[in-house]
Amino acid sequence: MSRPADTELLAVALEEARAGLAEGGIPIGAALFAADGTLLGRGHNRRVQDDDPSVHGETDAFRRAGRQRSYRGTTMVTTLSPCWFCSGLVRQFGITRLVVGEARTFDGGHDWLAENGVEVVVLDDDTCVAMMTDFIAANPTLWNEDIGVD
Amino acid sequence: MSRPADTELLAVALEEARAGLAEGGIPIGAALFAADGTLLGRGHNRRVQDDDPSVHGETDAFRRAGRQRSYRGTTMVTTLSPCWFCSGLVRQFGITRLVVGEARTFDGGHDWLAENGVEVVVLDDDTCVAMMTDFIAANPTLWNEDIGVD
Repeated sequence: MSRPADTELLAVALEEARAGLAEGGIPIGAALFAADGTLLGRGHNRRVQDDDPSVHGETDAFRRAGRQRSYRGTTMVTTLSPCWFCSGLVRQFGITRLVVGEARTFDGGHDWLAENGVEVVVLDDDTCVAMMTDFIAANPTLWNEDIGVD
Repeated sequence: MSRPADTELLAVALEEARAGLAEGGIPIGAALFAADGTLLGRGHNRRVQDDDPSVHGETDAFRRAGRQRSYRGTTMVTTLSPCWFCSGLVRQFGITRLVVGEARTFDGGHDWLAENGVEVVVLDDDTCVAMMTDFIAANPTLWNEDIGVD
């Protein structure tokens, strides 16, 4: 099987983000794929739904992928540039590639990851930008809570 | 109430680490304290127990503290220098202080956090060192899995 295009990977993360929004949550989704394109785990931010500040899109996808002996060759795709928490996840576990939907509404750690050997692709996707722009405008306090801004 | 000494904070993290060891898990514990010394959450690594790679000591303590509007003035105490994942957690959420039991058996992101404004104290505690030294010697494969080493 040929490896899916990055836009196809992003489509999975976007589905997750939309599911989160429909649940009343913060619309950020992510997924972890094996080197051959197999989906290992997918998830979305559940701060509101689960009352759990540790469940960002990336940590949810990582957790749902279960225990893996190695992350070599894996790709994490996320609708939004990863915060330091999620960037640290990617770096610590040696996730090889990071596909970012957009980094305009939040500039996380993707440059730091690129400097530290992660292959980073920023798609600058207009749909992702619009979704977060609308969400942040409507929910500034909740958004600030999610990224640790007082 | 006066703020507890860092060694008292570490005693809570050590209790958690020992509880994890008794459960057959990786012996790393952590706790999050408010500025006035109130315990907000405590936890330990549960990779083995919960089959969940996202539950490190620090992420467990953070999660169990629940949603907080601000982490200003909080202290995270951990028996072991935090990995990038957990270091990113401390940085993203603006946790003010980090107390580390030891950084001899694993050199995580505590220096990076200090460079980025976190007040870091490394206690270099012999009990913490002995616990991890024994654990790593007996379980090298599990330990490497937990820190993403192939």
